[in-house]
Amino acid sequence: MEEQIDSVGKAFVDHYYHLFDNDRAAMSSLYQPTSMLTFEGQKLQGVEDIITKLTQLPFDQCRHVISTVDSQPASVTGGIVVFVSGSLQLPGENHPLQFSQMFHLSPTPQGNFFVLNDIFRLNY
Amino acid sequence: MEEQIDSVGKAFVDHYYHLFDNDRAAMSSLYQPTSMLTFEGQKLQGVEDIITKLTQLPFDQCRHVISTVDSQPASVTGGIVVFVSGSLQLPGENHPLQFSQMFHLSPTPQGNFFVLNDIFRLNY
Repeated sequence: MEEQIDSVGKAFVDHYYHLFDNDRAAMSSLYQPTSMLTFEGQKLQGVEDIITKLTQLPFDQCRHVISTVDSQPASVTGGIVVFVSGSLQLPGENHPLQFSQMFHLSPTPQGNFFVLNDIFRLNY
Repeated sequence: MEEQIDSVGKAFVDHYYHLFDNDRAAMSSLYQPTSMLTFEGQKLQGVEDIITKLTQLPFDQCRHVISTVDSQPASVTGGIVVFVSGSLQLPGENHPLQFSQMFHLSPTPQGNFFVLNDIFRLNY
């Protein structure tokens, strides 16, 4: 069970940042109307507002490099919390930005997961 | 509702780090048998194992300074996720350590919260 949680968390994280770095608009598949994103303190809710925020960030290209992924079962109802640390390389910047991000993944009736909670912070 | 979530998150964070910095053994009041802590990648479960880990960290005194607290409702069942960034000052160290930590707070039948999920990472 514990190994399964870890591999679900890692697979989600790989998928999330792969989409972020390659096809940001396609991240709409990860969210649902109840989803919440707090991005550097700005609160957004719902697929449309979240994707608008992510696609309108002031950089088109970026590359996330993941340092750590920690996952835990979040409840008896099958949710998972995932905590990520890593760095974000932006075009034209010599130094990558360090970030931390947490996700609360919630199971769907179809046996997948969607992002219920998403909180992102750069580490200064 | 949103303001209430924020103030519950902030009040919890103040309480958590106040206990951590002043009476670490008393943090047992924050956890329950189902609680999980992942501390720098090490997984612990249950009040006793978590408190043993926290009280046996290789420093007796410390001071947490909080930089950001982001909170969101975690589910329809009344949970809250809280994401914290800050710094940790250890005795004899010139430079504080940057850290990030997330909590998933779960409601108790008595109307309080306990820490269901707790993940801590230093930011290198």
